[in-house]
Amino acid sequence: MERQDGRLADELRKIQFIPGIAPHAAASVLSCFGGTRVICAVTVEEDVPRWMKAQRVEGGWLTAEYSMLPYSTLDRKRRDIANGRLDGRSSEIQRLIGRSLRAVVDLKKLGSRTVWVDCDVLEADGGTRTASITGSAVAASLAFEKLVAEGRLAENPLRGMVAAISVGMLKGAPLLDLCYEEDRDADVDMNVVMTEKGEFVEIQGSGEEAVFTGKEMEAMLALARKGVAELVRIQRETVSLTARPGAEDLASLASFFAKK
Amino acid sequence: MERQDGRLADELRKIQFIPGIAPHAAASVLSCFGGTRVICAVTVEEDVPRWMKAQRVEGGWLTAEYSMLPYSTLDRKRRDIANGRLDGRSSEIQRLIGRSLRAVVDLKKLGSRTVWVDCDVLEADGGTRTASITGSAVAASLAFEKLVAEGRLAENPLRGMVAAISVGMLKGAPLLDLCYEEDRDADVDMNVVMTEKGEFVEIQGSGEEAVFTGKEMEAMLALARKGVAELVRIQRETVSLTARPGAEDLASLASFFAKK
Amino acid sequence: MERQDGRLADELRKIQFIPGIAPHAAASVLSCFGGTRVICAVTVEEDVPRWMKAQRVEGGWLTAEYSMLPYSTLDRKRRDIANGRLDGRSSEIQRLIGRSLRAVVDLKKLGSRTVWVDCDVLEADGGTRTASITGSAVAASLAFEKLVAEGRLAENPLRGMVAAISVGMLKGAPLLDLCYEEDRDADVDMNVVMTEKGEFVEIQGSGEEAVFTGKEMEAMLALARKGVAELVRIQRETVSLTARPGAEDLASLASFFAKK
Amino acid sequence: MERQDGRLADELRKIQFIPGIAPHAAASVLSCFGGTRVICAVTVEEDVPRWMKAQRVEGGWLTAEYSMLPYSTLDRKRRDIANGRLDGRSSEIQRLIGRSLRAVVDLKKLGSRTVWVDCDVLEADGGTRTASITGSAVAASLAFEKLVAEGRLAENPLRGMVAAISVGMLKGAPLLDLCYEEDRDADVDMNVVMTEKGEFVEIQGSGEEAVFTGKEMEAMLALARKGVAELVRIQRETVSLTARPGAEDLASLASFFAKK
Amino acid sequence: MERQDGRLADELRKIQFIPGIAPHAAASVLSCFGGTRVICAVTVEEDVPRWMKAQRVEGGWLTAEYSMLPYSTLDRKRRDIANGRLDGRSSEIQRLIGRSLRAVVDLKKLGSRTVWVDCDVLEADGGTRTASITGSAVAASLAFEKLVAEGRLAENPLRGMVAAISVGMLKGAPLLDLCYEEDRDADVDMNVVMTEKGEFVEIQGSGEEAVFTGKEMEAMLALARKGVAELVRIQRETVSLTARPGAEDLASLASFFAKK
Amino acid sequence: MERQDGRLADELRKIQFIPGIAPHAAASVLSCFGGTRVICAVTVEEDVPRWMKAQRVEGGWLTAEYSMLPYSTLDRKRRDIANGRLDGRSSEIQRLIGRSLRAVVDLKKLGSRTVWVDCDVLEADGGTRTASITGSAVAASLAFEKLVAEGRLAENPLRGMVAAISVGMLKGAPLLDLCYEEDRDADVDMNVVMTEKGEFVEIQGSGEEAVFTGKEMEAMLALARKGVAELVRIQRETVSLTARPGAEDLASLASFFAKK
Repeated sequence: MERQDGRLADELRKIQFIPGIAPHAAASVLSCFGGTRVICAVTVEEDVPRWMKAQRVEGGWLTAEYSMLPYSTLDRKRRDIANGRLDGRSSEIQRLIGRSLRAVVDLKKLGSRTVWVDCDVLEADGGTRTASITGSAVAASLAFEKLVAEGRLAENPLRGMVAAISVGMLKGAPLLDLCYEEDRDADVDMNVVMTEKGEFVEIQGSGEEAVFTGKEMEAMLALARKGVAELVRIQRETVSLTARPGAEDLASLASFFAKK
Repeated sequence: MERQDGRLADELRKIQFIPGIAPHAAASVLSCFGGTRVICAVTVEEDVPRWMKAQRVEGGWLTAEYSMLPYSTLDRKRRDIANGRLDGRSSEIQRLIGRSLRAVVDLKKLGSRTVWVDCDVLEADGGTRTASITGSAVAASLAFEKLVAEGRLAENPLRGMVAAISVGMLKGAPLLDLCYEEDRDADVDMNVVMTEKGEFVEIQGSGEEAVFTGKEMEAMLALARKGVAELVRIQRETVSLTARPGAEDLASLASFFAKK
Repeated sequence: MERQDGRLADELRKIQFIPGIAPHAAASVLSCFGGTRVICAVTVEEDVPRWMKAQRVEGGWLTAEYSMLPYSTLDRKRRDIANGRLDGRSSEIQRLIGRSLRAVVDLKKLGSRTVWVDCDVLEADGGTRTASITGSAVAASLAFEKLVAEGRLAENPLRGMVAAISVGMLKGAPLLDLCYEEDRDADVDMNVVMTEKGEFVEIQGSGEEAVFTGKEMEAMLALARKGVAELVRIQRETVSLTARPGAEDLASLASFFAKK
Repeated sequence: MERQDGRLADELRKIQFIPGIAPHAAASVLSCFGGTRVICAVTVEEDVPRWMKAQRVEGGWLTAEYSMLPYSTLDRKRRDIANGRLDGRSSEIQRLIGRSLRAVVDLKKLGSRTVWVDCDVLEADGGTRTASITGSAVAASLAFEKLVAEGRLAENPLRGMVAAISVGMLKGAPLLDLCYEEDRDADVDMNVVMTEKGEFVEIQGSGEEAVFTGKEMEAMLALARKGVAELVRIQRETVSLTARPGAEDLASLASFFAKK
Repeated sequence: MERQDGRLADELRKIQFIPGIAPHAAASVLSCFGGTRVICAVTVEEDVPRWMKAQRVEGGWLTAEYSMLPYSTLDRKRRDIANGRLDGRSSEIQRLIGRSLRAVVDLKKLGSRTVWVDCDVLEADGGTRTASITGSAVAASLAFEKLVAEGRLAENPLRGMVAAISVGMLKGAPLLDLCYEEDRDADVDMNVVMTEKGEFVEIQGSGEEAVFTGKEMEAMLALARKGVAELVRIQRETVSLTARPGAEDLASLASFFAKK
Repeated sequence: MERQDGRLADELRKIQFIPGIAPHAAASVLSCFGGTRVICAVTVEEDVPRWMKAQRVEGGWLTAEYSMLPYSTLDRKRRDIANGRLDGRSSEIQRLIGRSLRAVVDLKKLGSRTVWVDCDVLEADGGTRTASITGSAVAASLAFEKLVAEGRLAENPLRGMVAAISVGMLKGAPLLDLCYEEDRDADVDMNVVMTEKGEFVEIQGSGEEAVFTGKEMEAMLALARKGVAELVRIQRETVSLTARPGAEDLASLASFFAKK
C-alpha cells in the first residue's frame, strides 16, 4: 500500500528536535514529527506538591501539562479556559506524558523539587502525544544536564531515554508513525512508549469502533520497536549536539525554518 | 507466590452482576469483582449530541460517565463538584468505558438516540474500570433487549459481548484481576478490553515508574484472555437469567448481600 | 380519598434501612421509603474545617452532601459537574440534612473530627430528603457505635434519634409520606424533622404557588408526628438488629431484593 | 426579658420601604428592617426560561436572585465570583424568595415574560431574607402597576400582598423580628411567610443544634401573625404613597437618611 | 453643538457624594455623576495578600472590585456568578480603580492591612468607572480619617486626592463627562485620572473603531483638567462636611432623594 | 543615562516578525521585540458571534485572545485553566489587542466572518502587549491578502497598519521600548497604539504608585511616535518580503535562531 506522503510502511516522518524555542525554560525543544510541531518545555520549581508533603514522600515530582494551541488545527480549537474546563482528551494525554517521563526519572535524585513538563501543540498532524513524550525526554535530559552543570543536582536523575511512537492498522496493513489522515482512517491506533533498552513503559492500543487480533498487535509492536530505536538515536544526537553547539547544529535549525 | 486472598495467579475474584439496582434506568446492574462494587446504569435519551447534528452524522451515540462515590475509598474522596473540576483519572476512565462499549455497538442501529452509561463506584478494591466496562456491557445488553421488546428498536445493536480485566506483574509473576493491594504493589498494571471472540478492543499497559519486557506482556495477555473468556460466560449467564428470572437468581442475590 | 398505591391517608410507605451497602464507609444504609432509595453513608475524618480552627471552636463538625445519581429519575439528570455548578435544590437539601443531624449530635463529644454524611439518591419517588435524613440518622448511629467499640470515642455523641417525613394537602385532605405523583399534585408540601421525643428540629412548609391555613398546618403536623414515631421505631429496630445480625435480618435483606 | 434595643417582645423594628433606589429597574425599593437594608429591584424580560419553552408551559415566570454585598457585614464577605461558586445559604434564600413571590403572582397573567427579583443586601443586621421577601413584594406590586399603566399587562397579576418575618425563642421567650445578636443567640429561628389574608406561604423553622416543642411553635406563630399584619399595612401604605407622591413621602425619605 | 441635557461642552453633570450608604463599611458614599450612581465602600482587613507575605513586602495593600448590579442597566445584566466568570470589562475596570487609588496612598503607612474598595453600580448612565474612582477616593479619605481617629493608624496614608473624568470627541467637538448616549456615539472615549495637583495618574484613550489626532487629544486633556479640578473641589467639600455633619449636609441628602 | 543593553533612549530593541510559525493558521508570525517573543496567529471562522446575530449587525467581527505560556517567565506561570479563571491582566490585554486591530479593519468588508487573533507569549521580557498588537497586525495583513488571493474576500479590509510601543519615565528620562527591568523600575509606563498615519488608536499611560506631568507625557509621546514609525517600516517590509520570499528573508530567519 502506498502512503500519501510516499513513505514506506515502516518509515518515520522527518523527526527534528530544535532546542531553545523557549529561552526562559530550564530547557526546551520544538519537537517535530513531520507536520506535527510541539513546544516541549521543562521548568523546575523548588517545591513539591502538597500531597507529597502531607504523605511525607521523599524526593521530588515530575508532572506534565498538555494543550493544543487554538491555531494548531485546521478548524480553530477553543481554549480550555473559554470552555471553563480542561478537555478530556488533553487530561488523558498529559497524564500519559507524566507517567512516561516518571518511568525513566529517579524522583529521589531530584531533591525537593517539581519538574514541570509543558507540551503545547503548535501544529497538529497526527501523533501529538508521541511527539510530546519524545520531545519532552530531550528537553528533560537537557534540563537535568544544566542543573548538574550548575551544581543544583549532584547527579543526573534520568535513567535512560524514553520515546513514543504511534502504529496502526490501515486497510489490513500495519503502519508506523501515522499522520492525521492515516490516524483518522485507521481501524486501530496504538501508541507505544518504550525505553532505549527496548522495554515497554506504556502501551495504549485502541480499535475505536473496531477490534484487532493478537497477530495484528504483534505486527504493530514490531514496527513500534523499530521506530523507537530510530527516535532514540535522534534524541541522543540532539542532546549531544546541543551540549556543544557548532556549525552543524545551527545550520540544521536554519534549514528547518528555511524549508517552511 | 501465594496471593493474599488465597487465589491462584490465574483466578478471578468472585464475579457477580446483580440486576435492578437502579429501577428508573433502562437497565442497571451492581457489578462486583470481589470487593469492588460499581453501579452500572444505562439510560436512553431521544436525542443526539450537538456535534452529531452539526456534522450530520447518521445514527446514535453512546457515551459514559464514571465517578467514585465519596465513601467508596477508605479515605473519603471529595466530590468532583466540591473541587470544581472533573478528576483527571475519572475523565480518562470514562473515555475508556465509552470507547469500549462503542466498539461492540452498531451506532447506526440506535436511531437518533444517545445511550448514557453511568458507572458509580460504591466500593473500590482495585479494578474499578474493568468492573465498570464489564458490568456496563451487561446493562447495555439488558437495556437493548428491553428497547427491542418495547418496539423502540427494530434490532439489538449489540454486535457481541465486551469485557475487561486487569493483569499485572508482581514480584516477577503475572497475576490476573488485581485487588487494591496487588495493584498498588505491582510493577506493571495492564487493563485489557476484549470481545467475546477474543479480539482486542483496547489495551492499556503501564509500568508506572517501572518498565516491562515483551515476554512479560505476552504472559499477561495470556492471563487476560483466560479471564475475559470466564467473564463473558458470567455476563451471558446473567443476561439470560435476568430475561427469565427464577428461584436460582433470587437466591443468588440474597446470598450476595447475606455474606457481607 | 383513595391513594394511588392503596395506602391510608396516615400510612407510611414500606420503610427499610438495609445496612452495609457501602462497606468502606464507617457505616452505611440503603434507606428505602417505598420506591425512593437513598444511599446514606457516614465517613469520619480526623480533622476539622478551616473555619473551626480559625475561630478556635472546640469539638468536631458534622456536614452533609446530597446528590441525585443521574439514573435516579425517569428522565436522566445531568451530573452537577457536567453543569459546572451545584444544583440549587441539592444545596438546599444538603444544608437541611446537616442541620437536622447536628441537632441531635453533641459536637463537643466528637473530638477534633469531621463526620461526613453523604446521601446519594439511587431512585427518586418523592421524599428523597426525608429518606436521606432518616437513613442518615441510622447510619450515624451505627458509625458512632463502631467508633465507641473501637475506642476512638469515649461516649456516643448521639443525643437521640432524629427522623423526617413529608406531609401535604391534596384535594383538601392531609396525607402522610407523599410519593412523587402526590408530591407533584399537592397544594402544600411540608417536611417535618423531629426527634424521638416529639420535639421539632426543622419544619419546612411550602405552598408552592399556593397557600395554606393554620388549621391545615395543624392537621399535617398531627400526621407528621404519627409518621415520625413509626420511623423512629424502625430506625431503633434496624440499629439493634445490625448490632447483632441474625437470621431475621438477612432474610429481610434477601426479601427486599427478591421483590424487585 | 429586656431586648437590647428596648423593643417589646412582639414589636417590629422600624420598617421602611424607600422607592426609587434603582431607577433603571421596573420598580425598586430599599427595604429597611431596622439596621437591615436590602435593595429589592424588579426587572422584566420579554422572554421565558428555556425549560418553559421545552415543556410548552403557558404564561410567564418569576425568579429571584439574592446576594450579600461584600460590605454588608462587619467582616467583609467575599463575592461569590471570587469563590467561583454561589454561596449555599444564598442559593437557599433566593429559592425561598422566588417561591414566596410566585405564591401570590398569577403567572398565567404575566404573558410570555420573566420577572426578575433581585435582592442585594446593603447592610445585614438579622432578617435579610424576610426584608428581601417583604420589600420585593412592594417592588413587584409597583412594577406590575407600572406595566398595567403602560398597557403592557391587561391586569395586575398580583393576587394579594405577601410578607415575611422572623420569630425565635431566646432564653425561653418568644421574640418577633430578631436582630443579628438575637438571631445568633436564639435556640430556634423561624421564618414565616404569609399572605395578607393570614394564610401561610412558607414556614421554615429550625432549631440549629437545638429543638423546640409544639407549644413553642404556636407561640412563635402567633407573634409572626401579628408581625405580618403590621408589615402588610406598611407595604400597602408605601404602594399607595408611591402611586401619588406627595410632601409626606419625600419628608420620610429625607428623615430616613438624615437619622443615619 | 447642543448637548441632549443642555450642558455646555465643558460642563460636568450634577456631582454628589452621599455618605453612609453602607453603614457596616469603614466608610461609604453613593457616588452620583448625573444619572450614574455607584456605591463606593471601603473595608479594611487586618491581613495582607499571600503574595505579599511570600515576597516579604513591607506595608499594606489596596485592591478594588467592581460590578454592575443586574438592575443598573436598561436591559438586565446577568450576574457574573450566573455566567461562572468575571466579565472582562469589569476585570479591566477594577484593575484601573485599584491602580488609581494606590497612586495616592502610601501603602507603607497602612501597616499590615488590606484596604478593599468595592464599587457596585446601582444605575449606569455613562462614566461608571470615573464615578467609581472619584467616589472611592472620598470613601477612602473618610475611612482613613476614621482609622486615625480610632488610633489604628498613626498617620493618614492618603497623599492627596485623586479623581477621574471622561472626555470624548463627538461630531468633531470635544466634550466633558459623557452620558451614556454621548459615550455610545463618540468617536473617541478617553478616561483621565489625575491628582489634585494636576498630575496624571492614568490616561486611557481609545478610538474604538476610530482614531484621533494629537491635537484632538490636547483638546480633550484640557477639558479633563478642568473637570478634575471641579471634582476635587466637591470631593474636598464632601469630606469636610461629613467630618462635622450639619444642616447643609442633611438637606443636600434629602434634596437628592426628593428629586428622584 | 546608559541603558542596560546599551541602547539609546529613543532606540527600539531588535524587531523581527518571523512568518509561518503556525502553519495551520490563516497566517502567523513570531513577533520578537528583543527578548520578548509572541506567537501571533490569525484564524478565520465562517460565523459571527451570537450577539451580532441577535442585534442583526451587518459584517463580521474581530476578537483577540492573549495568554502567557507557562514557561514564558522566569518563574513558571500557572495556566489559566489550572486556576479555573482567566487572569485579570490577560483579560485586559486581549481586549486592548482586539480594539487596536478593529480600529484599522473595516468589519463590514469581512462578510459574515469572525477573525480570531491569538497571541501566546513564548518569552516575556517587557512589552508583550505591544509585540502582540504589532505582530498581530502583520499576521492579519498576511491573512487578509491570502483570503483575497483565494477569492474569499473581494477586497482587503485592512485600512492601514497599526503598531504599538511602550514608553516610560525612568530616573527622570523618557525611554522607548522598555525591557522587563526598565518596565519594573519605571515610574510611568505608557503603551501607545498608533496608525501608520500617526493617529492615535489607544493610549494607556499609568504611573503605578506614581504620577506624571503633562510635560513628561509629551516627551513620551514624541518617543512613541518615532518608535511606531520605525515599527510600521519593519511591518511593511515583512509583509512584502513574505509575499515574495527570497534569499534575504531566509537568511534573516536563520540568523535569528542562530544567535540564540
